[in-house]
Amino acid sequence: MNRVLTGLLLNGKVVDIEIKGGIIGEISPSQSAQKPEIAILPSFYNTHTHAAMVPMRGYGDDKPLGVWLNEWIWPFEAKMTPAMIRQGSEDAVKEMISTGTTAFNDMYFEIEQTIDIVKQYGIRASIGITVMDNHTLAQTEAKHEFVKHWQDPTGGMIQLVMAPHAIYTVGRKNLVECAAFARENGIKIHIHLSETAQEVSDCLRITGMRPVEYLDSIGVLGPDVIAAHCVYVNRKEWDILAQRGVSVSHCPCSNMKLGSGRFPYELAIASGVNLTLATDGVSSNNNLDMREEMKFASLLAKCVTALDDGSLANGGNPELLTAQQVFKMATENGAKALGINGGVIEKGKVADFILVDLKELAMNPCHSLISNWVYAASSKCIKEVWCNGKPVSNGLIK
Amino acid sequence: MNRVLTGLLLNGKVVDIEIKGGIIGEISPSQSAQKPEIAILPSFYNTHTHAAMVPMRGYGDDKPLGVWLNEWIWPFEAKMTPAMIRQGSEDAVKEMISTGTTAFNDMYFEIEQTIDIVKQYGIRASIGITVMDNHTLAQTEAKHEFVKHWQDPTGGMIQLVMAPHAIYTVGRKNLVECAAFARENGIKIHIHLSETAQEVSDCLRITGMRPVEYLDSIGVLGPDVIAAHCVYVNRKEWDILAQRGVSVSHCPCSNMKLGSGRFPYELAIASGVNLTLATDGVSSNNNLDMREEMKFASLLAKCVTALDDGSLANGGNPELLTAQQVFKMATENGAKALGINGGVIEKGKVADFILVDLKELAMNPCHSLISNWVYAASSKCIKEVWCNGKPVSNGLIK
Repeated sequence: MNRVLTGLLLNGKVVDIEIKGGIIGEISPSQSAQKPEIAILPSFYNTHTHAAMVPMRGYGDDKPLGVWLNEWIWPFEAKMTPAMIRQGSEDAVKEMISTGTTAFNDMYFEIEQTIDIVKQYGIRASIGITVMDNHTLAQTEAKHEFVKHWQDPTGGMIQLVMAPHAIYTVGRKNLVECAAFARENGIKIHIHLSETAQEVSDCLRITGMRPVEYLDSIGVLGPDVIAAHCVYVNRKEWDILAQRGVSVSHCPCSNMKLGSGRFPYELAIASGVNLTLATDGVSSNNNLDMREEMKFASLLAKCVTALDDGSLANGGNPELLTAQQVFKMATENGAKALGINGGVIEKGKVADFILVDLKELAMNPCHSLISNWVYAASSKCIKEVWCNGKPVSNGLIK
Repeated sequence: MNRVLTGLLLNGKVVDIEIKGGIIGEISPSQSAQKPEIAILPSFYNTHTHAAMVPMRGYGDDKPLGVWLNEWIWPFEAKMTPAMIRQGSEDAVKEMISTGTTAFNDMYFEIEQTIDIVKQYGIRASIGITVMDNHTLAQTEAKHEFVKHWQDPTGGMIQLVMAPHAIYTVGRKNLVECAAFARENGIKIHIHLSETAQEVSDCLRITGMRPVEYLDSIGVLGPDVIAAHCVYVNRKEWDILAQRGVSVSHCPCSNMKLGSGRFPYELAIASGVNLTLATDGVSSNNNLDMREEMKFASLLAKCVTALDDGSLANGGNPELLTAQQVFKMATENGAKALGINGGVIEKGKVADFILVDLKELAMNPCHSLISNWVYAASSKCIKEVWCNGKPVSNGLIK
């Protein structure tokens, strides 16, 4: 049965939108004379997270990276059971839905648990099969078998992704094999890349190359790759990422909170790379709220200025990373990275969107809908979330 | 009639809190065996805003400062009527209440309108009488008469404050007279200070001193002063501010969004100055949400490192400005700046607090209540807001 929704679009027009199954149908000017009560906006696509880490929210905050990992996160993770991962995934999916996200690119363990939760809740997910050198041959073979026999239980909402963790946890041989396996099986690759200055200096010392150059030299980079973080990527490397068609997942809150650093917005934008937005896991954020993440990205871009030598000058450019640009990162560019035909409200696109309450204080006055949504709103303004043509606002598929 | 509320405090204890009129009475361990459903946290004190600017939300975003002021904000302000200021003040007060703020330090015009709204809604306010050189003698005399004959219509919830706008809009003679008038009448002083690098270089050129040194040389600084922004304040100036007992109002979102720069957290904290938190007006934020502002301050502090020469290095210190510290800025330190006996949940303090819903996803699990509130929560988690011993959650006094 087709549904019709009436609301305000980002272009300022009030329209009737037909929902045909999971797809957006005809969009026509609304015949209603009343002021619209809702805006219809594309939902978020979160391109880098670790959903199951919700049990670690607020655990070991405000600590140096080494202390945080060694004394807090890794000991906790060693005790994570499949049941905890299931619960963490469920809490994460509920939180994502309540904050307007309908697809996420995940990297964790015990993925059967997360897959089962995603299926129940009716959103989309790219589920990373984590690869690390310390996994046994038997574990690796089991993962390969899982991929080869994979049949999506949702008929198209879930895709598997190979997720070599990072260049400092996966050696050259394993990286090359993992990329080859992904390409043989037609699935994407998800990796942490150049998150810290330490990662770059270690890579230079060991390989003589910077991380992006190194990955490129062994053939890992391509349009099927989503690289998370990329805080320490220089001009030459941005050109490599753009030329190879890599999608970059920017995680401002995590980079700030862990003291990793300020993302090089100037270079990334100039390179033309497909720039997307993500929350990372709750343990370094500490939520999964993409609306908040948009404001962090846009304001961090404007606050300081990156100089050519990689240092920073205080004071910045208020025109850098506009509300429109950061919203596109969180929606349309994320869709492109994840291979979803969505991220915009147009006929023929997947019917993934949110209904935003225009009566909320933060949405008024409405000189600019996009500005209000990026800079002023909160997830409190979200009335409903739809994915694949169905409301998922209350968690379970209606 | 006394009321008793049961909830979780920041110290991890579940208590019964007696509310006696506008004051917190006895606090005793709760006898209830049930898990608490709410946390009782101090409400926010926003130490720098322009409440009536709500009609300019989202008006002229992402523009260079000069263009934004000259082509957007000032032409709009020239058309602001008392009725618009009244409406803007009302919308601002409603937004502040809904996001957990129960007192604000304001600087704008047509203050009778704002005073009347604050009275209706039952929160606290410090209402700045804006002073600028371009005001006429008659206007100035009228302000002075207003102060001399002022009687708080709320019996203690509203205080007047002299608000010389900034050193670049108020000359030396006017600054000195304004400070003298404030002190004769026992009221505080509220000023913008060292917001941009331009302000510092202009001041150096004209006076031979940096802004803090200049204000100190003419006797303006003292424990009755709230200085907003202070982005470009060096080590020597921080020592002056601390020695004079000035309260500093940090506005991270506004400083970031306008490209003003990154606040020197290292120096400010080391000086021991009374550091408070604020949203600035919605036109440069674009909301009045102090919970969001806490996260911005804490994460911006951690992201990059200020060097001794005032430049910045990328990558920062995740231990800088902890959740506890930034929460104290937004509550207890703000109370001190505004002269309110509050900001903590203790017997004898004013009964200004919020009830936070511990069942919200962002508040779970609860390894650390303060971490969840600062880093993970949103104003959606606020169930009720109390000011002066009364719930004000729905806007008007109950």
